[in-house]
Amino acid sequence: MTTQEQVLDVARRARQAAAELAPLPRATKDAALHAIADALLARSAEIVEANAGDVARAREAGTSEYMIDRLSLSTERVEKIAAAVRHVASLPDPVGESVRGYTLPNGLELRQIRVPLGVVGIIYEGRPNVTVDAAALTLKSGNAVLLRGSSSAYDSNVALVEVMRSALTDVPADAVQLVPGRDRDSVKYLMRARGLVDVLIPRGGASLINSVVEESTVPVIETGVGNCHVYVDADADLGMAVDILVNAKTQRPSVCNAAETVLVHRDIAADFLPRALEALRGKGVTVHGDEAVRAYGDDVVAATEEDWSNEYLSLDLAAAVVGSLEDAVAHIRRYGSAHTEAIVTTSQSAARRFVALVDSAAVMVNASTRFTDGEEFGFGAEIGISTQKLHARGPMGLPELTSTKYVVTGEGHLKGA
Amino acid sequence: MTTQEQVLDVARRARQAAAELAPLPRATKDAALHAIADALLARSAEIVEANAGDVARAREAGTSEYMIDRLSLSTERVEKIAAAVRHVASLPDPVGESVRGYTLPNGLELRQIRVPLGVVGIIYEGRPNVTVDAAALTLKSGNAVLLRGSSSAYDSNVALVEVMRSALTDVPADAVQLVPGRDRDSVKYLMRARGLVDVLIPRGGASLINSVVEESTVPVIETGVGNCHVYVDADADLGMAVDILVNAKTQRPSVCNAAETVLVHRDIAADFLPRALEALRGKGVTVHGDEAVRAYGDDVVAATEEDWSNEYLSLDLAAAVVGSLEDAVAHIRRYGSAHTEAIVTTSQSAARRFVALVDSAAVMVNASTRFTDGEEFGFGAEIGISTQKLHARGPMGLPELTSTKYVVTGEGHLKGA
Repeated sequence: MTTQEQVLDVARRARQAAAELAPLPRATKDAALHAIADALLARSAEIVEANAGDVARAREAGTSEYMIDRLSLSTERVEKIAAAVRHVASLPDPVGESVRGYTLPNGLELRQIRVPLGVVGIIYEGRPNVTVDAAALTLKSGNAVLLRGSSSAYDSNVALVEVMRSALTDVPADAVQLVPGRDRDSVKYLMRARGLVDVLIPRGGASLINSVVEESTVPVIETGVGNCHVYVDADADLGMAVDILVNAKTQRPSVCNAAETVLVHRDIAADFLPRALEALRGKGVTVHGDEAVRAYGDDVVAATEEDWSNEYLSLDLAAAVVGSLEDAVAHIRRYGSAHTEAIVTTSQSAARRFVALVDSAAVMVNASTRFTDGEEFGFGAEIGISTQKLHARGPMGLPELTSTKYVVTGEGHLKGA
Repeated sequence: MTTQEQVLDVARRARQAAAELAPLPRATKDAALHAIADALLARSAEIVEANAGDVARAREAGTSEYMIDRLSLSTERVEKIAAAVRHVASLPDPVGESVRGYTLPNGLELRQIRVPLGVVGIIYEGRPNVTVDAAALTLKSGNAVLLRGSSSAYDSNVALVEVMRSALTDVPADAVQLVPGRDRDSVKYLMRARGLVDVLIPRGGASLINSVVEESTVPVIETGVGNCHVYVDADADLGMAVDILVNAKTQRPSVCNAAETVLVHRDIAADFLPRALEALRGKGVTVHGDEAVRAYGDDVVAATEEDWSNEYLSLDLAAAVVGSLEDAVAHIRRYGSAHTEAIVTTSQSAARRFVALVDSAAVMVNASTRFTDGEEFGFGAEIGISTQKLHARGPMGLPELTSTKYVVTGEGHLKGA
């Protein structure tokens, strides 16, 4: 079979599996998740062995230690992955939840209930734990999944998917499938499998996400690019502002909800910037500032136009002084990625204006941008963070992996003229 | 300016208007809607005159009387359109509605609130009333709208949009804009205006909708193609089944929620089909049947493979006998458009199975397919009927024209390790 035929074949089998999976009760799905966790533990040695091959090849290819760390599995890591699967089993089943329900004046009973999306395709980075996380979340929400991980983790993913499928008995094994092929072509065919695949969720870098958005005829949920801002208002508690900025920038710089730009109201710039720059310096942060910021530190690098749009994912921070809250909002609208923005202020009116005017998935008032996360938001788990406006926005949990269906019950109701 | 520049220009102005419109309170938006209704009434003569030109050109081009009727405006019709705008003003404002809200264990207060989508593009058929309906619904939900109606109604739409814009004072006039140009190119540029337009809603025939879905990089909500089925179960009340089938097929054959296929359980075929065929004959319906159906009527036309997929929108009906409820579901999955399917049955178990297994936007139990409609469902108004699974499914009212935003309020909360 060609790559295209192989991709269409797994997609067709996923579609059939999705139809069988959709009406299954919670108990069957939870039992399948526990069986998956058991199998992962029982066969963790062969998973770790397959992973060792991927890691060796990555090292040979000169991959950074940071990426190698994300790629690597150990017995302890497999145990954590299995525990995460059991955690998903413990979460409420979104399928069947009644979203709306009432009786119409003519006596028709209307209910809007959650149903699975169907077949979900996930395109993701070289982190084998995502293979299992994504499979668990889609299975729990009654969806079949097509997993297309990074080719750097291919052997790990083959092993993980084989182990998961071997554990499925009352759930069709084709509900969990790896998209075959290491090359980029398989992504292309997945993007054109409209009618077989209901939604694609690309995770990872901006270039992957943009290419999927541009080329896919299957509906896409964009995730994860975060050029997050902290705005320090004229009425900020400056100590709190320094703490929030340092936390948002440095607590884990490589993730999408880390801050990349600070915007400082000019009325407090002279008080705030010396303290902030000192604290950032202490954490090893390189600040890329506009002219006004550079007046407060010799070590501030001159910011270029690109710095304002950059998602550094490193210990770099862009910094600018703004004339007003409205100027800060205009800057965010122009350069931001609509992920998460924070305001630090003691003014109720400034907080309300910022919340109303900023058009992003999450707006933090006196809190670190790092809190935009499915676990932090109390969703129990997360399949990604949507930065688009349709269907889901912000952290996506199990309900975001469902659609709805209207069920209307009558007793021979006919439509009048 | 080229057509492309013109489309990008209106899209940019819509984006700016959307940012100004989003935070406006309900009272301002409702006042704008009443001002639009007033202006439509005051200037109805010039609207009807502009429309007369479109109608004359359509007649010259040999357009069917049915299409001419949809295109035509009169003083009375303009009055109805204005009344519909006032009705939209009376509906609740979805913007600001709290969808979720709780305090997290760490004391952060989380709220998920409805916000406008931003810029909504609507591509629609030659019905000038849609120009005003769509503008009213998008304005009420805080969105800017780009209207791209059929070129057959271009002069009518120019007049309607001019009248609506002239009525806007506290709402930016660029919140309501007609996409310039009569040719198809303007649709093409609208579909590529990603980043400026947040969603495109194509309404009309399957070919328009498919081409938008295939080519658009702007997210699309598919609407309205309805190959709706009535399944008459072995345990049906046959009198009710005949009434529902006749109502679903003939009450208004040209709309998407009219029935196009009837599937009859073989155990009651001999009792049901003679009665059904007689009733359908009385209403002038041509039945396209499989072999089993043709045994009950000499006037039943032999169905071809295409008949099962056809959205006739006329007094034609495809008919087949099936061996079981599951066979009916398989037929619907294979040939349907996932809009609306009905089951007629007295069996609770059959109803439950049909509802669970049919994967369509709406499932009717003992009711006509004709009830799938925003007004009938109690939404007050409708922008279209989504047949896709992402974002909105089934009739879309005002809440479906919104996205959400998370607002998280703390008192200096930092993320721990």
